[in-house]
Amino acid sequence: MNISKQTKNNNRSITLDSRPFGAPNTDNFLIKNQKPPSPLQGQVLLRSVYLSLDPYMRGRMNDTKSYAEPIALGETMVGATVCRIEISLNDNFQEGDWVLAFSGWQDYALSDGKDLLKIPPNLANPSFALGVLGMPGLTAYMGLLDIGQPKTGETVVVAAATGAVGSLVGQIAKLKGCTVIGIAGSEEKCAYAVDQLGFDHCLNHKSDNLAQQLEQVCTKGIDVYFENVGGRVFDVVMPLLNPCARIPLCGLISQYNATELPEGPDRMSLLMGSILIKRIKMQGFIVFDDYSHRYNEFSQAMTLWLSESKIKYREHLIEGLDNTVDAFIGLLEGKNFGKLVVRLGPDDLI
Amino acid sequence: MNISKQTKNNNRSITLDSRPFGAPNTDNFLIKNQKPPSPLQGQVLLRSVYLSLDPYMRGRMNDTKSYAEPIALGETMVGATVCRIEISLNDNFQEGDWVLAFSGWQDYALSDGKDLLKIPPNLANPSFALGVLGMPGLTAYMGLLDIGQPKTGETVVVAAATGAVGSLVGQIAKLKGCTVIGIAGSEEKCAYAVDQLGFDHCLNHKSDNLAQQLEQVCTKGIDVYFENVGGRVFDVVMPLLNPCARIPLCGLISQYNATELPEGPDRMSLLMGSILIKRIKMQGFIVFDDYSHRYNEFSQAMTLWLSESKIKYREHLIEGLDNTVDAFIGLLEGKNFGKLVVRLGPDDLI
Repeated sequence: MNISKQTKNNNRSITLDSRPFGAPNTDNFLIKNQKPPSPLQGQVLLRSVYLSLDPYMRGRMNDTKSYAEPIALGETMVGATVCRIEISLNDNFQEGDWVLAFSGWQDYALSDGKDLLKIPPNLANPSFALGVLGMPGLTAYMGLLDIGQPKTGETVVVAAATGAVGSLVGQIAKLKGCTVIGIAGSEEKCAYAVDQLGFDHCLNHKSDNLAQQLEQVCTKGIDVYFENVGGRVFDVVMPLLNPCARIPLCGLISQYNATELPEGPDRMSLLMGSILIKRIKMQGFIVFDDYSHRYNEFSQAMTLWLSESKIKYREHLIEGLDNTVDAFIGLLEGKNFGKLVVRLGPDDLI
Repeated sequence: MNISKQTKNNNRSITLDSRPFGAPNTDNFLIKNQKPPSPLQGQVLLRSVYLSLDPYMRGRMNDTKSYAEPIALGETMVGATVCRIEISLNDNFQEGDWVLAFSGWQDYALSDGKDLLKIPPNLANPSFALGVLGMPGLTAYMGLLDIGQPKTGETVVVAAATGAVGSLVGQIAKLKGCTVIGIAGSEEKCAYAVDQLGFDHCLNHKSDNLAQQLEQVCTKGIDVYFENVGGRVFDVVMPLLNPCARIPLCGLISQYNATELPEGPDRMSLLMGSILIKRIKMQGFIVFDDYSHRYNEFSQAMTLWLSESKIKYREHLIEGLDNTVDAFIGLLEGKNFGKLVVRLGPDDLI
């Protein structure tokens, strides 16, 4: 069956067929075709137009206790979506409304409306609700400002510098008067971070002498390290951390496909020793658990910055559900350039 | 030369003769005898009556960059002292005044008064200024309350539970309505923590099944872990940490004598993964750098608690400078029982 096209009568969904060992591959996913569900009184029928792909989804594919339940085998992959209301039996929504939902990797879903957020009709692009004005934006804003507490003149380092979160972290840090060093995975991404996003420097983490390069540009050490990556990037950051450095711990994408711990020596005590001696604060956070109550504050600030062109935002748009799995596998390898979003269907399905 | 007695005409000092590799031994120290110095105008001559021995001193013996400069070879070992003013050529001090100083492992020192804190004459014992009302007290108070932020009904775990800091952490946590679990190094210490200090439980870290014991008593997980120890104790604490747990990182005494990192696997990413997934805050602090401006707040609270007998405080008093090195070596092995203080001389030297 051709799954490339969204239609009115078929609900395509991508389910978790087997749990990955290491990097996921196409065999871990299965496409199902079903009749779209019918809403009951009080419900709406959602049609997904945009689907967000994010690194956290890799964790949900594992059968391990985490901050969220794992996806069960046979269940639809989870994810935030921007949807249109196709049918409304709920007084709070009208057909044609744009909403932010969490309906996963599929075309159609039902909702009682409680888990939906209306998207203002004047938004330049409804898909921005999945990025700069959504979860990644709130993550960047709160992680940097609330945990990182950057001060004017301090040095902020952010890895995955052109990703959905990292690109916003660096730009917000520049707005706060910091020196910003990005780390990214290609020369093209580094040039973009400096030329377009206004970072002071951006280093390619694939270069041989990353540690020396980072030391050269961080002339006053590192005050805030926004951690998206872990692994080798953290190794080169750690020695340069200043006393009282802050580390908002947002993600560890380099570790998500790991099947075992690296070989020794065991550096856990080394990390704790550094945290002690340098009086470092390292803090993990999950944006919707910790900060959803501050969404309005963030949304106002970010909307203003966007309207003043103080923040730039790049989407990496993929067309069609049939490219979703490959795009997700590529995301974990850093192949995307900007916020990864899949367009599942047209704005209006006739 | 007999060094056992403090006299008016000889300044005994213990200097760092060589840097330890691993655990310090007596060969690392050298005793010197010199004429006591003579104060100039504006200075006072201090005579040390009590010397505090603390784990941080081990770090200062290494030639590695840390939050404080290493002690140079040939220099007197550093340390907080409670002194009497023997001669005053400074208008702010009178002969016979008790002061808190940082004059190190020796009998006599000069000061211009700026680094001295007067000890109130009504203090039950002037040596309390080295413990419950001094650096260890401030460390326990600020680390627990400012970084740990314990809430009524939460579970607080503290290792080195009968030590200078740990015993106060647990008692303050009880005053805040928490369930308190101590970890200590002998059955006698554990009994003291429960029977005298009022901890809910105290476990012997030398027992074989510490992990299972801890899991049994922490029925609701661990919300605050006050870290004094590191190593094996942290290993058993880590899996029991609750979401949003806080870890004030105050010391890592189990690591201070380590000469190399433990064998692998490398668990650094495991620790960071736990901090991320559980949204943990781990924060190092150095009490005088971070909290000296809040000493008065602490002092008022602690003085009140002591006067109301809500806080108990135990000193492990050693007699004489000639027992100092052995006492310090024993401190790093957990042989002390209570705050370790050396009495160098009598209250009044005639």
